[in-house]
Amino acid sequence: MTSDRRDVSEPVQLPEDLAVVNIGLPVFGDAAQRQGAAVAQVDWRIPAGGDTELVRVLTRLCGRHGSRVDRANAEVFERLDQAAPQVVEVTPVQSAAVDLDDRTILHSGPPLAWEQFCDPLRRSARAAVVAEGWAADPDQAEGLLARGEIRVAPANHHGGAVPMASAVGPSAPALVAENPEDGTRAFSAVNQGPGTRAWMGSDDPEAIERLRWLTQVAGPVLGAVIEAHGPINVFALASQGLQMGDDMHMRTQAASNLLVRDLLPALVALDDPRAVDVARYLSSNHLFFLNFAMAAAKATADAAAGIAASSLVVSMARNGTTFGIRLAGTGDRWFIADAPPVGDALYHGQFTADDAAPDIGDSAVLELIGLGGAAAAASPAVAGFLGSTLAQAVGTTEAFDQMCVGRSRRFQLPYLEFRGSPVGVDARRVVELEQTPAINTGILDVHRGRGQIGAGVARAPLSCFQQAVRALDEHLSG
Amino acid sequence: MTSDRRDVSEPVQLPEDLAVVNIGLPVFGDAAQRQGAAVAQVDWRIPAGGDTELVRVLTRLCGRHGSRVDRANAEVFERLDQAAPQVVEVTPVQSAAVDLDDRTILHSGPPLAWEQFCDPLRRSARAAVVAEGWAADPDQAEGLLARGEIRVAPANHHGGAVPMASAVGPSAPALVAENPEDGTRAFSAVNQGPGTRAWMGSDDPEAIERLRWLTQVAGPVLGAVIEAHGPINVFALASQGLQMGDDMHMRTQAASNLLVRDLLPALVALDDPRAVDVARYLSSNHLFFLNFAMAAAKATADAAAGIAASSLVVSMARNGTTFGIRLAGTGDRWFIADAPPVGDALYHGQFTADDAAPDIGDSAVLELIGLGGAAAAASPAVAGFLGSTLAQAVGTTEAFDQMCVGRSRRFQLPYLEFRGSPVGVDARRVVELEQTPAINTGILDVHRGRGQIGAGVARAPLSCFQQAVRALDEHLSG
Repeated sequence: MTSDRRDVSEPVQLPEDLAVVNIGLPVFGDAAQRQGAAVAQVDWRIPAGGDTELVRVLTRLCGRHGSRVDRANAEVFERLDQAAPQVVEVTPVQSAAVDLDDRTILHSGPPLAWEQFCDPLRRSARAAVVAEGWAADPDQAEGLLARGEIRVAPANHHGGAVPMASAVGPSAPALVAENPEDGTRAFSAVNQGPGTRAWMGSDDPEAIERLRWLTQVAGPVLGAVIEAHGPINVFALASQGLQMGDDMHMRTQAASNLLVRDLLPALVALDDPRAVDVARYLSSNHLFFLNFAMAAAKATADAAAGIAASSLVVSMARNGTTFGIRLAGTGDRWFIADAPPVGDALYHGQFTADDAAPDIGDSAVLELIGLGGAAAAASPAVAGFLGSTLAQAVGTTEAFDQMCVGRSRRFQLPYLEFRGSPVGVDARRVVELEQTPAINTGILDVHRGRGQIGAGVARAPLSCFQQAVRALDEHLSG
Repeated sequence: MTSDRRDVSEPVQLPEDLAVVNIGLPVFGDAAQRQGAAVAQVDWRIPAGGDTELVRVLTRLCGRHGSRVDRANAEVFERLDQAAPQVVEVTPVQSAAVDLDDRTILHSGPPLAWEQFCDPLRRSARAAVVAEGWAADPDQAEGLLARGEIRVAPANHHGGAVPMASAVGPSAPALVAENPEDGTRAFSAVNQGPGTRAWMGSDDPEAIERLRWLTQVAGPVLGAVIEAHGPINVFALASQGLQMGDDMHMRTQAASNLLVRDLLPALVALDDPRAVDVARYLSSNHLFFLNFAMAAAKATADAAAGIAASSLVVSMARNGTTFGIRLAGTGDRWFIADAPPVGDALYHGQFTADDAAPDIGDSAVLELIGLGGAAAAASPAVAGFLGSTLAQAVGTTEAFDQMCVGRSRRFQLPYLEFRGSPVGVDARRVVELEQTPAINTGILDVHRGRGQIGAGVARAPLSCFQQAVRALDEHLSG
């Protein structure tokens, strides 16, 4: 037995106990298991669904260009994982945004012509136009927008990221995040809160009034409070929030409370009668922190954009009509597909899938830096809210692990013995595995402006990633 | 094969595959396992460590008296699990406490003569005497206390429960919890916050100044805020806190933040210049909610006290010298043992076990209603803080499951798929299994008043429970 060579003339003796390693379709392994064999199932799939052209693209991106792509991805990963943006001020969108023309409404998602706007985003834009004082009512606003007298542009093109069906005019208050290490700066809107709100697709008078209140009251008061408090280290709060059951996308309850607690002394010290109203708003808005997280995530992702040859995703945004991604290594180009429906949905009251608008909002930028779906395992509460189990939430995080190049050093998952959440979605892996990011998100009324009607999980369309790897391959091979 | 009878004359055929069920000492099972057998280990222990007198006591309490005890326990469990106390006001201890004489300091733990006070509790009482204006300094206070000119009494005897080495005079502010369903009312002190504080065993000027500040500033301001806000449903907040990583004893971060968020509008609206100072205190005190939880737990446990024949524990308190419990079925009698050391300890800086005072505080009342150690599995953060794992924290909760008669319907454990935390510690089971409640707690400096020097887990002394079951048996058999 000192050699493992066997005399080939010796008859083969089959072992009595068979143990099976089954690769790919589980049906064969299941059959062996039913016959009493020990089976280890290997989850192997045909790369890229067997599409030979894509297999060639991946072969080049992992082979000939592989080391270059990997090096670029390592740099992008570092930037995504190490940036520490701080929210430094609240200022009108016109000061916060980059290259913003007059009379422009910034909206969530990739670029889109007005005619293609979905109903919730259309309502939200009309509400913003009225709140700006450019129109007397939503009908008049519709006319101005339809005639192009008021332009629309993606917040993403002007340094911003806004959640759900947000549409913001130049006077709306913006949270500004600075990423000093990488020199980027990004903004998000101030969260509009629950109820009948424009970001939930309403242009009711109440929704418009809330926009005016944010501009006239919440913005200035929060600005003064944050100035008195000093810069807010967003990811330090997010990291604590993950220890307290937030996924930091669908649930930001803990981080919102931590932030409110931090701001408390400055708010109480503020000599401004409007502070009470803002206190009520803070006390009842468990998504207050969401927009801080988004501003910081955008400042982080922007710092990683433009790193040549990287196959990591640095933009992921939806406008309710289209879903788009951008890679670090392919410049400003969006790779677009139809916005997917929100699946695994739980609807409020009598609402059904027939009432549901497609996936919408810039918040999916959170999924790129280790939050949201990537951190699903942090939040038994979100799993319960979605009618699933913690084990399923762990599965969501583990699916991100397969798509991502690394794990966060700051966002730790308590239920997984504090291991880091997955960071850096690699389009190559997404295409190879045909497994796309899952995004925990709200669902809006598709037609009648009744706001949020449910919540669920949207799955990013595969074709965006397929287009993206083709473009990266052309760029590197061309 | 239609009958399972075997002809006894037939030779016995031993099976080739042996599966072993090993009961008791694991060493036999381990040996069988090493020889390749499948082993199921049953964790069986000799009841009551084989003490024949205690076995006879338990036999009566589970046999002859068993159904009576079980019925009483079911009633106690209902009261422990269903009470919904609300903190309704902040008022001086002299109004909140029952039957309080003049010039008395209330302290944590079972009754104790002044000469037996441990150093941290002694310092705390001296600080309280000075803060009351009864003495100019701690030395003078020591004289008054030693001569009995100022009396000491357990808070527990006057409707209160106070954490760690708390000692409160009549003017100190108290949080009053009302349990309307059962008609009980209990109080706790207002939490003194982190740092050099009397409840951490300090009588430094800073600690005394904090007591004065609580009386003159925090008490009145919090009283006005709670009056404006309305009654606080303590266990509703505690229940949410468990979903956010609190164990509600060592960690009350999430519940404190939820409470601060709720109180925010009333605090900001308050027209009182002292509010800013209180805001700073709230913003930096993550144990603010602990005392709310204790007041509510005491009102709950008191509602279950005096239920004849019950073997469930309704008081569990420590004063740093002794550890005491009371059963629902044995009236006001304490069953006392020496206060245990705090084990599994992590010390700050250069401190060691030589610097550590024994276990202290009334907070162990939380462990009786499904919080603290019973809810250890809710808090990966506490497990991490104590240098252990979530799996070990789950083990702590499961040990409570073995000692308790039921599971909470309101305190759910997210990491255990939302099952309820154990409620209702049965002294019979504790004695039978020789397994006592584990209490997550802080550790104080034993001699020099340097405050909290670490944290760890104290294990309730078995002899308290042994005395208690003997007394209950005498009572029922006599």
